[in-house]
Amino acid sequence: MTALKLIPRKEFERAGDDLGLLADMCRANALVAVKRAGSGHLGSSFSSLDIVAHLLWRELNVAELGWDDPDRDIFFSSKGHDVPGLYAALHALGEIPTERLLRLRRLGGLDGHPDIGVPGIEANSGSLGMGLSKGRGMAWAKRYLDRGGIVVVMTGDGELQEGQNWEALASAAHQRVGNLWAIVDRNELQSDRPTEEILALGDLEAKLRAFGSHVEVCDGHDHDALAAAFASMRAAPADVPKVLVANTIKGRGVSFMEHPRALRDEAFARAHDELVDRIEQRLPDLQLEEVPPLEERVSLEGEPESGAGTRSAVTDEYVAAAYGEELLQLVTRHPEVVVLDADLASDCRVRTVELEQPSRFVEVGIAEQDMVSMAAGLARQGLLPVVNSFASFLASRANEQIYNQASEGTKVVYALHYAGLIPAGPGKSHQSVRDISLLGALPNVTIVQPVNAEETRALLRWAIEDAEESVAIRLAIGPSPRRTELDGGLQPGRGSVLRDGDGPTLLAYGPVLVHEALVAAEALAARGVDLRVVAMSWLNRFDAEWLEELGEEEDVFVLEDHAPVGGLADGLRRALDGRARVTAFGVEGWPACGTPPEALRAHELDGLSLAARIERATSLAPSP
Amino acid sequence: MTALKLIPRKEFERAGDDLGLLADMCRANALVAVKRAGSGHLGSSFSSLDIVAHLLWRELNVAELGWDDPDRDIFFSSKGHDVPGLYAALHALGEIPTERLLRLRRLGGLDGHPDIGVPGIEANSGSLGMGLSKGRGMAWAKRYLDRGGIVVVMTGDGELQEGQNWEALASAAHQRVGNLWAIVDRNELQSDRPTEEILALGDLEAKLRAFGSHVEVCDGHDHDALAAAFASMRAAPADVPKVLVANTIKGRGVSFMEHPRALRDEAFARAHDELVDRIEQRLPDLQLEEVPPLEERVSLEGEPESGAGTRSAVTDEYVAAAYGEELLQLVTRHPEVVVLDADLASDCRVRTVELEQPSRFVEVGIAEQDMVSMAAGLARQGLLPVVNSFASFLASRANEQIYNQASEGTKVVYALHYAGLIPAGPGKSHQSVRDISLLGALPNVTIVQPVNAEETRALLRWAIEDAEESVAIRLAIGPSPRRTELDGGLQPGRGSVLRDGDGPTLLAYGPVLVHEALVAAEALAARGVDLRVVAMSWLNRFDAEWLEELGEEEDVFVLEDHAPVGGLADGLRRALDGRARVTAFGVEGWPACGTPPEALRAHELDGLSLAARIERATSLAPSP
Repeated sequence: MTALKLIPRKEFERAGDDLGLLADMCRANALVAVKRAGSGHLGSSFSSLDIVAHLLWRELNVAELGWDDPDRDIFFSSKGHDVPGLYAALHALGEIPTERLLRLRRLGGLDGHPDIGVPGIEANSGSLGMGLSKGRGMAWAKRYLDRGGIVVVMTGDGELQEGQNWEALASAAHQRVGNLWAIVDRNELQSDRPTEEILALGDLEAKLRAFGSHVEVCDGHDHDALAAAFASMRAAPADVPKVLVANTIKGRGVSFMEHPRALRDEAFARAHDELVDRIEQRLPDLQLEEVPPLEERVSLEGEPESGAGTRSAVTDEYVAAAYGEELLQLVTRHPEVVVLDADLASDCRVRTVELEQPSRFVEVGIAEQDMVSMAAGLARQGLLPVVNSFASFLASRANEQIYNQASEGTKVVYALHYAGLIPAGPGKSHQSVRDISLLGALPNVTIVQPVNAEETRALLRWAIEDAEESVAIRLAIGPSPRRTELDGGLQPGRGSVLRDGDGPTLLAYGPVLVHEALVAAEALAARGVDLRVVAMSWLNRFDAEWLEELGEEEDVFVLEDHAPVGGLADGLRRALDGRARVTAFGVEGWPACGTPPEALRAHELDGLSLAARIERATSLAPSP
Repeated sequence: MTALKLIPRKEFERAGDDLGLLADMCRANALVAVKRAGSGHLGSSFSSLDIVAHLLWRELNVAELGWDDPDRDIFFSSKGHDVPGLYAALHALGEIPTERLLRLRRLGGLDGHPDIGVPGIEANSGSLGMGLSKGRGMAWAKRYLDRGGIVVVMTGDGELQEGQNWEALASAAHQRVGNLWAIVDRNELQSDRPTEEILALGDLEAKLRAFGSHVEVCDGHDHDALAAAFASMRAAPADVPKVLVANTIKGRGVSFMEHPRALRDEAFARAHDELVDRIEQRLPDLQLEEVPPLEERVSLEGEPESGAGTRSAVTDEYVAAAYGEELLQLVTRHPEVVVLDADLASDCRVRTVELEQPSRFVEVGIAEQDMVSMAAGLARQGLLPVVNSFASFLASRANEQIYNQASEGTKVVYALHYAGLIPAGPGKSHQSVRDISLLGALPNVTIVQPVNAEETRALLRWAIEDAEESVAIRLAIGPSPRRTELDGGLQPGRGSVLRDGDGPTLLAYGPVLVHEALVAAEALAARGVDLRVVAMSWLNRFDAEWLEELGEEEDVFVLEDHAPVGGLADGLRRALDGRARVTAFGVEGWPACGTPPEALRAHELDGLSLAARIERATSLAPSP
């Protein structure tokens, strides 16, 4: 691998106010940061970077006033996927130090999605559709507090499929919040496919005007056109919210990146060369700064976008892939099964269903609430919907819709992808450590998480063919750190012993933390403690006999790929009713952003930390 | 009170196909049903009844084919508030028996909001904004299954403020679900005030057209106009979703009800007389059937709409009223406090803030997600937002937005009104027994529920002036069943002893279930068991010393105004870590619909049932 090279800050000063050049320079540095991180959304960063550069270097007062001034203009991205580009711009403006830019998606570095812990970041975002409401709150507050500055919120175009945007726009017009600007990065591509195919926006201008905004449209890479559009927005009535639809090209700035979604290794180098060549034409004798090597290799662990890196414990097993394969078979076998997706078909491994069984696949766009209620309607007609999204979005944003569906007593299978702490690079908007708690109080939803590919297939078959109520299946999105084997077939409500022992019992679920549990057992074995490791894939349903056996233990340890509140341990304590003492190790506080080992260590959930915690807990436990 | 009189089914047959007359007859019977229930939304029922009658008696095939035929047209109301009118129509058509119509909002009768357990009801609804998605699912399934019939979904006009509607409409156009009809009951009044004031819909037709629907507009009380509109919808392209904006008048059919929101006692009689007089002009010798008296009086317990009835244990204390009064004072004292509302200002007792401090009040319309994200933006500007809605909507629909706000580490106060099982008349869409579980896994949100007016004031002051993190305050909406007094000031994380005793300890929270706990103690005292009753208003934060004391008990009983999953008991078990055995009594299964005593008894949470359960548990508990 050739060394990575960054454009240092002083070179940006030489670029003067050549906005196109500045944007390209930010592209080059964003590319390096993402390359080093191993993952990140480049296409979205590149489409928005001309706009970001134009705003920060020319249109807004924030770089001049600084990010602490109450009268500053506020800019943030609602989609948040484009944050590597914004980081590069904030670095160029001196707000983010070089060392931190080079720690994208690393512990103590820059979060994979915007977080206000990072200098220059004005709002947490990354889960789509909240930005216009939040920006309106800021703009309303500025008016109330008699503060200067406008609030500019960047949204994606696919993002406008989230209904909250239309709530926000209607209110912005009604409340006459004219110091709110929205900029739609209209690159016409969303996560999976062109916006027109996923869920066409139709006459977007007409929609925005009907919702009461002043609307401008321009080429989002043409700085003269941007300047004219912003001037028109300044000239528009003060009490009307403004929207700029900026037509852009995803991946803009690198010829072969304009449109494809991810970049493999060698492509990174070619992209960087192309950008640097063009920058050098306008900035001769460009000085690049070599980036020091990382202290450790970076792991990917199933990031939605590709990159490089390895981790010692990684197999080629993906439970999510097994899910997709088995689902395709089940769809083929059962004509009542219909698969729903909210623009994450690739990540959720349902693309093959879409391609091979198109009549059984429903794409709703980025609209999780709509997806769940539509599924409820399908189920009322006797179909069996399988609903897919990331756990953090599905269990949370569509929570009331799931409650409503469950209250009808129909059956829906919810596939909660990307459940748990890992991968930790995308940050807290994407890590799902609350989903068990969010579904746990529904009377008729079984929650499970398979530990390996084989169990994934078995659980999905059971959910579709045998379960008598709705089922939520948590799925790890990344590769399994080790291959495990379970004895016997599926045993509802019972754990499977993965490592027998006469020491205390540790229950764990999901491939990632079951691996850490086994690492802990190996570490403890060396110290003479013979930990029993049980994979417990049933997170809220317990077989009475199995519970009886468990209740005979003195101490039961539970490893949660979840917050300590509302997970497996809470359910077990309830069911054990005082038998056995249950000690849980879960994700305390906000999930850490970083590589898998960093995040696991930060929460003391890696095998070695666990071994120490279990040893401490057992030696401190009162004797019977 | 004069006897209530119902129009029997055979009289409807005499009305032939006089749709206006049929609608009036349904109005008269809906009035009787609501009068008997003690509460219910009449205005919304009356505005939609001409449309409902037109659909069921003329336009749709369902009354002819029956409600089990797969090829039937499907009709349901997304808003659901208008279900008394639909019940009356279903009764007239023979689908709902008379005895059941007369048990509106009673256990085993008709749910306060639509539930598919009732004959003729096609979908659970009542929480706004889900119906178009669900209807689209049904319509998609009909197409896929090659079934006949269209799907007609009634929505409110205020309801269109929920963003999910726009998700649903965009997808209906994109997916070419042309067998979906939406009918907007455009009565221009929402719960609190005119739609134009709350959040103007603007050019609704332009919005609907921009979102890809075929749009018709007509007078929703003119049957010729309705017939013409429906004919145009049938003639419109088969693959385009259809929307009828039906201009209606809330309370239509009773002169003095056209617009006011609720009816007091004597007004019911006048309204009924007016309707019957008009019906008799067209249907001479109208025979009315006297309704047998109720076996017990009906209680209201703070229903959003008024009515009659009493219950033995009811005071004139409303914790919600104390909240509103204290909030007004705090707003006056603290310029940074801003109050947000999503069209429930009266029920949430923030109307006085709106009237007396209009600059500090933000109305967002029926858009809970937008409200929470706007509050997040306000908080990022240093303001302190107090967000109001019903617990069932706020904690659930805006869950991801609350997570996002909390992740920014700002402070927001969430007022979760109408928390818990009671009042039970409106049914499961409104009863909130999951909210503690939905917020519990957030690392930095304190959840509390005051037991009386004084503590409500103290907790709100603490939340606004002292708390260092976000606070969720659960509030009962109805009157307190008894007045309680707490010793000393506010003691974060500690319970307050309401009744000392040397028997087991029962923890309870909120005025409703604390009363039942005290009833249980009184019942047990008569049998020589000296129950200690502790009001525990801190639902997820425990003082270490208090826990220590509690841990010395052998058995701790917890009474949850919540599901048994994710409530106070789960948190206590976690915190007690094996000390004391915790037994919880919570709302198992789906919350029952009925009067307060009915619902409490149905869940065995009334004082006498509790006494028996505690006695059983203690006598069965193993000796130390």
